[in-house]
This record gives sequence, C-alpha cells and structure tokens, in this order.
Amino acid sequence: MKTINIIGYGNVGYHLVNTLLSVKEYTILNIYSRTPVTSNTVDISLFVNDLSQLQRADLTIIAVTDSAIEKISSLLPYTDELVVHTSGSFSLDGLNDKNRKGVFYPLQTFSKTKAIDFSNVPICLETKTTNDYQSLEKLGHTLSQTVVSLNSEQRKHLHLTAVFVSNFVNHMFTIGKEIADENNIPFHIFYPLIEETVAKIKTLEPKNAQTGPAIRADYTTIEQHLLKINNDNYKNIYKLLTNSIIQNGKKL
Amino acid sequence: MKTINIIGYGNVGYHLVNTLLSVKEYTILNIYSRTPVTSNTVDISLFVNDLSQLQRADLTIIAVTDSAIEKISSLLPYTDELVVHTSGSFSLDGLNDKNRKGVFYPLQTFSKTKAIDFSNVPICLETKTTNDYQSLEKLGHTLSQTVVSLNSEQRKHLHLTAVFVSNFVNHMFTIGKEIADENNIPFHIFYPLIEETVAKIKTLEPKNAQTGPAIRADYTTIEQHLLKINNDNYKNIYKLLTNSIIQNGKKL
Repeated sequence: MKTINIIGYGNVGYHLVNTLLSVKEYTILNIYSRTPVTSNTVDISLFVNDLSQLQRADLTIIAVTDSAIEKISSLLPYTDELVVHTSGSFSLDGLNDKNRKGVFYPLQTFSKTKAIDFSNVPICLETKTTNDYQSLEKLGHTLSQTVVSLNSEQRKHLHLTAVFVSNFVNHMFTIGKEIADENNIPFHIFYPLIEETVAKIKTLEPKNAQTGPAIRADYTTIEQHLLKINNDNYKNIYKLLTNSIIQNGKKL
Repeated sequence: MKTINIIGYGNVGYHLVNTLLSVKEYTILNIYSRTPVTSNTVDISLFVNDLSQLQRADLTIIAVTDSAIEKISSLLPYTDELVVHTSGSFSLDGLNDKNRKGVFYPLQTFSKTKAIDFSNVPICLETKTTNDYQSLEKLGHTLSQTVVSLNSEQRKHLHLTAVFVSNFVNHMFTIGKEIADENNIPFHIFYPLIEETVAKIKTLEPKNAQTGPAIRADYTTIEQHLLKINNDNYKNIYKLLTNSIIQNGKKL
C-alpha cells in the first residue's frame, strides 16, 4: 500500500493531508474537495472537485460528514481497492460494496486553525480481512504510537464517550468563559484548575475525584449560584448536572 | 505576620498545612480538627480538637465547609487578629466582627490523596484594610506565582465559573468512564483527546473550538447516541447539552 486518496478537506482531511505529506512511505495521489481550496503547503494540482477525476489509489480515506459517506463511496471511479472512512459513528457496512471496506478513526478533536501532533492520536481500526488490517495498522503506526482494533459497536460507544469527555467538556468551558468575561475575571486563572481536573483522573476514579457544592450537598451555595445565572439554558444545565452528581454521590 | 493557625483538616486544610510546613517564614501554631488525626508528616502535638485550646496567632485560616465558617469565627478564643476563610462562595462579611476579616481562596480542586503544587494555584484575596491585604499578599506570593484581588461579588462568579469548568467537567469524565468501562474500552485512550480539548481553549475561544455531532447538527448520530445511553439521567444530560450547543451554534 503506497498511494492514498483523501476525500474531503474538512477538519480531519486537512490534518491527515498535512501529516501524510511528511511521510515518505506514502504518496497522496489526489485530494477531493467540493469547494475550491487555496493552500500554501499542498501542491494545488493534487486537488480535484469531481470524484470521477480521482486516480486509482491503494487506499482511499473518506473524511466527510457521516451522511455523505455512503454516496461518496458509491461514486468512486474504481473498484477492488481499500476504502476507509474516518467516522466514529458510521458503520463499516455502510460503505459501498464495490471496494474493500475499512475504518480509520482518529480519536481526536480537530480544528483547522490548531496544529495536531498525530503521534499522540489513538487510531481505531476495523477491516473485513487480516491483510487489510495489517495495511492500515502499518499506516497507523507510521502516524501514531497508539493503534487499536475496535468493531463498529465498540466504536459507536467510544464516540459516545468522546462526546461526553470532549464535546460536552468544551461546552462547559464555553459557559464558564462567558460567565468569567461578563464579570471581568481573566479566564487564564482557571487554567491550573482545569489542568488539575484532568491530571486527577489519571490517578483517581473520576467519581472519587468529584469536588464542589453538588457532591457536598451544599444547597446554600447551589441556590446562590442559580440566582447568578441569567441564561435559562445554563441554569437548567446547572440544575441537571448538580442533581446527577448528588445522585451519583449517594451510590458511593 | 509570622504565626498561623489552620482551622479544619479537610481537603484544603490538609494541603495548606503540608505546604506551609515547608515555608520557613511562617510557623503553624495549631491545627484544629473536629475528628482525631493521624499524620506522618505533621507534629501531632499541633492538633487540637477544641477551639478554646488554640493559641493566639497572627493569622487564622478557616478551611471548613461554608455553613460552619460563621460559627467557628465566633468561637475563636482571641480578638483583633487577622482571620480569613478559604471559600469561593462565602462572603467576607460573614466572618465574626471580633477579629479583622479576610479571604484567602485558592482556586484549585483538592483531594487528599493527590499532591498539589501550590505554586500553580491562583490565590484570590480580599481584605478590609491595605495592611491586611499586604500581609496576605506576602503569604500568597510565598506559596504561588499568581495572587489576585477579587471582591466578594467577583469571587462568587469565579466560583460559579469553577463549578462549570472543573466540577461539571469532572462529572463528564465520570459518565464517560462508566460508558467506556461497560464496553471494555480502555479509558486511557481518551487522554490525548481530553488534553487536546483543554489545550485548544488556550488558543481558540471555546465556542469556536466546539466539535462533535451537536455543533454539526448531525441528528442521525445524536439519535443513535441517545439509543445507546441506558441511564435516564445521562440521557437527559446528553439532550440538554446537545440542545445548548445547537443554540449557541446558531448565534455564531
């Protein structure tokens, strides 16, 4: 496996392309992007905006939104090659039958404006055959220290877990930053607290690391906090999470 | 200001004592603990379990649960010394009038079983007089790089923010770990994702760093996730946070 096509130039595709360009064992033949692309780092002649223009590649990595994976896999202008998607929730079987199927799911949060060190990104693989697994595993280890085999069912639970520990955590940061900004409190003074919150779960079970008014059942503070939240959405979030922490505390 | 009493030997008191013992400029006279204490690091003769046994100290740090601060401050067997509490939400004025009042609030999450490097912990101060502020500031800088002045109103908002960015974040980790454990997914493979989620907000506004099915309005994945959550509490949390992210996304 030497040649690779990347389909999609969103957050995942962008970082995959920019990482693979520095790996000499593999060659990117084409990058498909629906919309025109300008790039200082990528040879612009690699880009195509019509799937029929793709050259045949040993591996095709489809890094597009879940709802488009099936259709795009059916429109590839070649057969009998290895075609993988990069989604945490889309199944292996949803890929079109005309090519060999696989999943190459990097467990990370990607934003175009923030560089990523792929060597720290666990890559979750699924294939139909041992041969294809070994090919993907080799690519995976070229990019990352951590390559794991997960079936479609496990990957969906992994993705669900990632929503809680990353997407929802980021939303907590969004709400916290809003409150801090409104009260002229510099947000950077929370960084040590946030970093310690993360560091703790490496040595303690998260449920045993819980601190704050909810786990202490400190209803005076909880009531005071609720009075200070103006946004109804955020107030409901405060109530629901506080109750959930109190419920979990009772089980300890 | 040379001598210090520590009232309370819970999470905050414990770490304050163990840090202050290594600072030669200050001497701990007594530590009050309601319950008997065993310690390998602290001279056991310092401990008292009756407030009337406390020796007069230049500074008394009350590190107990909010609801006990007022009463304990009224029972101190001396007057006209500086007495501070360590609470994020209790006001300055709630301290008894017989001593000079202050707040010494370390913005961090403390668990007895996890060591703390105080030099990274922002310390938030409030006093009635400039003299007392300078005394606390000197102690603060002895322990930490970051000392800030906050009034009681700002401190309450700071504490509310801390609940979102630390306590609620830890609850997201608790839920995530439960789901991962149930599906035999090793939780450590989420660490790089979690660390990147935190690293991102130092260079991007959290609301602009949001990724995942909610911000993409990917209702297919959202529906699949909801089907996979057995715990009703967690299902409600998933729904509410997803809706909140979608609402915020519309404002961008």
